[in-house]
Amino acid sequence: MSRHDASVRGFASDNYSGVHPEVLAAIAAANGGHQTSYGDDVYTEHLQEVFRQHFGATAAAYPVFNGTGANVVSLQAMTSRWASVVCTSTAHIHVDECGAPEKMGGLKLLAVRTPDGKLSPELIDTEARGFDDVHRAQPQVVSITQTTELGTAYSVDEIAVLCEHAHGLGMRVHLDGARIANAAASLGVPLRAFTTDAGVDGLSFGGTKNGLLLGEVVVVLNPDAAPGVEYVRKSSMQLASKMRFTSAQFDALLGTDLWLRSATHANAMATRLEAAVHDVPGVRVQRPVQANAVFAVLPKAVTARLQKRFKFYTWDEATGEVRWMTTFDTTEDDVDAFAAAISEEMAAG
Amino acid sequence: MSRHDASVRGFASDNYSGVHPEVLAAIAAANGGHQTSYGDDVYTEHLQEVFRQHFGATAAAYPVFNGTGANVVSLQAMTSRWASVVCTSTAHIHVDECGAPEKMGGLKLLAVRTPDGKLSPELIDTEARGFDDVHRAQPQVVSITQTTELGTAYSVDEIAVLCEHAHGLGMRVHLDGARIANAAASLGVPLRAFTTDAGVDGLSFGGTKNGLLLGEVVVVLNPDAAPGVEYVRKSSMQLASKMRFTSAQFDALLGTDLWLRSATHANAMATRLEAAVHDVPGVRVQRPVQANAVFAVLPKAVTARLQKRFKFYTWDEATGEVRWMTTFDTTEDDVDAFAAAISEEMAAG
Amino acid sequence: MSRHDASVRGFASDNYSGVHPEVLAAIAAANGGHQTSYGDDVYTEHLQEVFRQHFGATAAAYPVFNGTGANVVSLQAMTSRWASVVCTSTAHIHVDECGAPEKMGGLKLLAVRTPDGKLSPELIDTEARGFDDVHRAQPQVVSITQTTELGTAYSVDEIAVLCEHAHGLGMRVHLDGARIANAAASLGVPLRAFTTDAGVDGLSFGGTKNGLLLGEVVVVLNPDAAPGVEYVRKSSMQLASKMRFTSAQFDALLGTDLWLRSATHANAMATRLEAAVHDVPGVRVQRPVQANAVFAVLPKAVTARLQKRFKFYTWDEATGEVRWMTTFDTTEDDVDAFAAAISEEMAAG
Amino acid sequence: MSRHDASVRGFASDNYSGVHPEVLAAIAAANGGHQTSYGDDVYTEHLQEVFRQHFGATAAAYPVFNGTGANVVSLQAMTSRWASVVCTSTAHIHVDECGAPEKMGGLKLLAVRTPDGKLSPELIDTEARGFDDVHRAQPQVVSITQTTELGTAYSVDEIAVLCEHAHGLGMRVHLDGARIANAAASLGVPLRAFTTDAGVDGLSFGGTKNGLLLGEVVVVLNPDAAPGVEYVRKSSMQLASKMRFTSAQFDALLGTDLWLRSATHANAMATRLEAAVHDVPGVRVQRPVQANAVFAVLPKAVTARLQKRFKFYTWDEATGEVRWMTTFDTTEDDVDAFAAAISEEMAAG
Repeated sequence: MSRHDASVRGFASDNYSGVHPEVLAAIAAANGGHQTSYGDDVYTEHLQEVFRQHFGATAAAYPVFNGTGANVVSLQAMTSRWASVVCTSTAHIHVDECGAPEKMGGLKLLAVRTPDGKLSPELIDTEARGFDDVHRAQPQVVSITQTTELGTAYSVDEIAVLCEHAHGLGMRVHLDGARIANAAASLGVPLRAFTTDAGVDGLSFGGTKNGLLLGEVVVVLNPDAAPGVEYVRKSSMQLASKMRFTSAQFDALLGTDLWLRSATHANAMATRLEAAVHDVPGVRVQRPVQANAVFAVLPKAVTARLQKRFKFYTWDEATGEVRWMTTFDTTEDDVDAFAAAISEEMAAG
Repeated sequence: MSRHDASVRGFASDNYSGVHPEVLAAIAAANGGHQTSYGDDVYTEHLQEVFRQHFGATAAAYPVFNGTGANVVSLQAMTSRWASVVCTSTAHIHVDECGAPEKMGGLKLLAVRTPDGKLSPELIDTEARGFDDVHRAQPQVVSITQTTELGTAYSVDEIAVLCEHAHGLGMRVHLDGARIANAAASLGVPLRAFTTDAGVDGLSFGGTKNGLLLGEVVVVLNPDAAPGVEYVRKSSMQLASKMRFTSAQFDALLGTDLWLRSATHANAMATRLEAAVHDVPGVRVQRPVQANAVFAVLPKAVTARLQKRFKFYTWDEATGEVRWMTTFDTTEDDVDAFAAAISEEMAAG
Repeated sequence: MSRHDASVRGFASDNYSGVHPEVLAAIAAANGGHQTSYGDDVYTEHLQEVFRQHFGATAAAYPVFNGTGANVVSLQAMTSRWASVVCTSTAHIHVDECGAPEKMGGLKLLAVRTPDGKLSPELIDTEARGFDDVHRAQPQVVSITQTTELGTAYSVDEIAVLCEHAHGLGMRVHLDGARIANAAASLGVPLRAFTTDAGVDGLSFGGTKNGLLLGEVVVVLNPDAAPGVEYVRKSSMQLASKMRFTSAQFDALLGTDLWLRSATHANAMATRLEAAVHDVPGVRVQRPVQANAVFAVLPKAVTARLQKRFKFYTWDEATGEVRWMTTFDTTEDDVDAFAAAISEEMAAG
Repeated sequence: MSRHDASVRGFASDNYSGVHPEVLAAIAAANGGHQTSYGDDVYTEHLQEVFRQHFGATAAAYPVFNGTGANVVSLQAMTSRWASVVCTSTAHIHVDECGAPEKMGGLKLLAVRTPDGKLSPELIDTEARGFDDVHRAQPQVVSITQTTELGTAYSVDEIAVLCEHAHGLGMRVHLDGARIANAAASLGVPLRAFTTDAGVDGLSFGGTKNGLLLGEVVVVLNPDAAPGVEYVRKSSMQLASKMRFTSAQFDALLGTDLWLRSATHANAMATRLEAAVHDVPGVRVQRPVQANAVFAVLPKAVTARLQKRFKFYTWDEATGEVRWMTTFDTTEDDVDAFAAAISEEMAAG
């Protein structure tokens, strides 16, 4: 029984949206009868081939439940007990996982401030040091987010340079791809261009924010980089018994062009929104719009009134910066109505 | 696209089955539009009321992804950093979670051998000792499984006595209810009779093994017993962003009689199977059939031939004991065909 | 048998020095016969009274092995499983403990950049936020170091203001007192003035850097702040069996004026060194000398030559800043010889 | 200042004793001047040679603070994140370390009941199973204690057979040698006979119970077995800054025959005690006396009276079994006086 108004959409987060109809159909198609649990099913077997097509012959896919799970499983599998991980100070693993990397994985995060949510060799070097010093948790992994938590996208070259630098330091590179499809759509390149081919060793492939009911995949690109990932997934409470339903969703997403179609649409809606508010007096778009997020600074009184009409989050209480996210089910009408509301409320002062 | 033969069912595990049609319909009904993520949605709000109806006014429900997650979140929330947990040596937390309680929760398990998978005050006392001794991880929780991993069910009185004993020692009681519905069906009592009313402080409510796509619920019955459970859920990587879909499934299960209907059916199928093989020469049913599992000892050659026809697990390689599980979608024909096969293969020697 | 030249001293660290003769005598005096192990001995019993005299009637002393142990035991005892700790980016717990707080304690550290190694209410606020947000490891403790890793000392007022602020946020204050005696000597106040009386809830009392063979003490000042510290000490591998020898050392240190005598001397030697190099052309003393450390910037070639004559560490490879530590056994002649060497090498260019 | 009566000795534990005079002299000899901290000192350098002489050319020695530390560092260094450890149900790591292996190391212990505190290939096999099963924390190490917590000693052959079996399973062998010197004395063989030469991969070498002030050593015998032990030692809060004093003590112990002299004496005192009480009516010596412990069953009333005269522990409240430990400083007169007291109290009924 439906308990909510399915016509209401906002700009709060891409995880406020529901399940794409093609994904729901795939779940239904995978239903019925018995399938071996814990991943020994035909859907998960097939999924390996799907991921190899996108990421190359060495890719191995390990479905998990959520993004925090994907990140913490990946990072544990890629590190020894004495590791630290270099990331940005805005990284999801640092600010939005309630300390799961530290508490569950025993990982020390070395968080670096950045102007735009992106690491570079120079920024990595500010924390990737103290190798062979027993007093320092050893930097073993660089973790980047693509697209970033600030709505920006690394270029293919930026990632390649960063991977080469990390590898030169003896470190691995992990990519948090909660919005990896938005990145591919933004860059206009295949998924492997900025992952496998750029030198990324392992990644968290996001599904939930791109129209799945739930599900992420730990993708190991460099088979030497993550021994024991199956055990880590299980001990980290991320092994689904009825895995066929996670795998079937990803098959619907990646076995067709749905992943790219949805991401391209979401990105386009953000671009439309940015264009619509660009010239509204008093609205300042803060950061390049390279994916499905728009960050803008508004007067707080305006924000308060707007939030009564559309859901979205304040990103920074101090500066009044807000975040508007678009998603696969954002419509052009949604964007236009929201932009109109922004203009109205700004005009009202 | 379906990739499997949906007409094939076996007796391997209740998590080999798929999603009950009523549950799938509930997922579809919860779809569309936007809902606040991470549990601030109307489905999860409503779920609180559903759980209070079953477990009493103090119950609070925290949906999670899987059984290991539910157990490890519950046990962390119910303990301090210096705790140990008394359980059986056959407990899922001890033998089937890849050390998640220890590795993720830092919990020491004190495993007690039992004849039938059930603890008693006397058995608890073999490990619940050394209170106030700093050399001993302090026993703070007794964890029982209902129905047990051996297919047996505690009576209401057995749990009440055990809870009183644990409380007398200053300990809490956790119930792993991966098959809690089967227990209620077996005992013929409401869920609260052997939980809230018997003194259980917190439990893991199983959905996956009773027809959900995925989902378990940490249910806190004693509000003092599990402070910070919301944070533990998040840091344990068990907080779903699109929680409406987990909650909607549980609403379909527990807001109607589906939970009991499915469990009663599964139990009946086990009873039917036990009856059908009871007199087959050479088949020895090992344990009381009180839920949806039948444990039997067969000649290994027979087992090997049978497993080519129907999926099921060997429980104990040494003794040749096998486990047959029934589930919501097991049919009478399934049971009869399996029983016939058992007779045939036994006759073939 | 001695294997080293006991006449050689340098300026590398206060833990390069050995054991003060009065401390060694106390060890010998505590020897012989049997004493109950694990802290139930007369020396540890007496130590409680010694600490109460310095820190007030509510103080309780728990001897441990080393500074990292003292910090990680304190912080675990002062936090729940979902905690984070605000500290400086130069804090020992952040940069010098190989991730022990994260790996052993499951603690997330929120490191704040500071100009001088000192936190303030404003700096605390940059990370002490997100209370009640399940996505954020909950800030529960502010950890300060006194004297700081940069050789500076908080004033009594600075600590009092900071404690009041932290308490107002519902947080506790931990003080890493690896060099707490140097702080008291620097401030010219009793130990309790900037701890108990200023609102500090618990601290790590350093002995090793002030002339002990080994030993630190977790001191709980606010009895509500650290439940279970005895268990945490044991499970954190910090409970000495022959504790009488740790306690006897601290009795020698704190039951007399040795602690203050040694610290005052060490501080004076740093002041002497700073004065001696102050006017050496090309030597730039970087930070206020408020305890037993002098930080200076030298040409790297000079540093390299000097390090062949006297041991000391480069603090910052990038800037050429070096650190010179003095200790209880640094003599005026040591300082003068070192200062002369600095002048010589600077003159040599 | 001495606060205790140094003439009083009992039979409670070998860690009730103090520091052997030769060890105290070694501490004093290592004092004075400056030595590089954290193990880069001449005493620790020399210690490597001492350990190689006892354990062979591949041995590497890592001093730590205490036995729990040595065990938990060893076991972490010898395992991956998904490991379990097979041990006895009476093992110190299982019953006396407040869950440190689980809480600090994330290790799951698989405890096996034994008649005499000793594992065998058959007993190992009861838990060393489920290899390649992701649901089972992977058994990677067998941990044995020599001499055992029950005062028994493995023969050289028993350990060799056990190591061969473990290696055949792909597992490593760890030896908890808190009383390893007593074992060598009991067996009359060099230390390496039942360690390096028998196939042990790593061990905890006990010093505290054999006359040190404090100190144990993690000894890696198989260099492949424990990568990263230096980092694990540091992150486990077991790295001493003034390590010269730990190393100097071990040099005094193992660079001479002190280790064997003290252990042989302690063992002889236990044998003398066993002989003295053997024929006392009503005293039942429970277990073979193969080291420095005597286990006996006495009437509880007798135990209570005796404990007012001499300190010792009740081992098993249920059976009335008590434990009497001897140590390097136990005298023949001590034993005779205690035996006489036992006879008296037994006679008094």
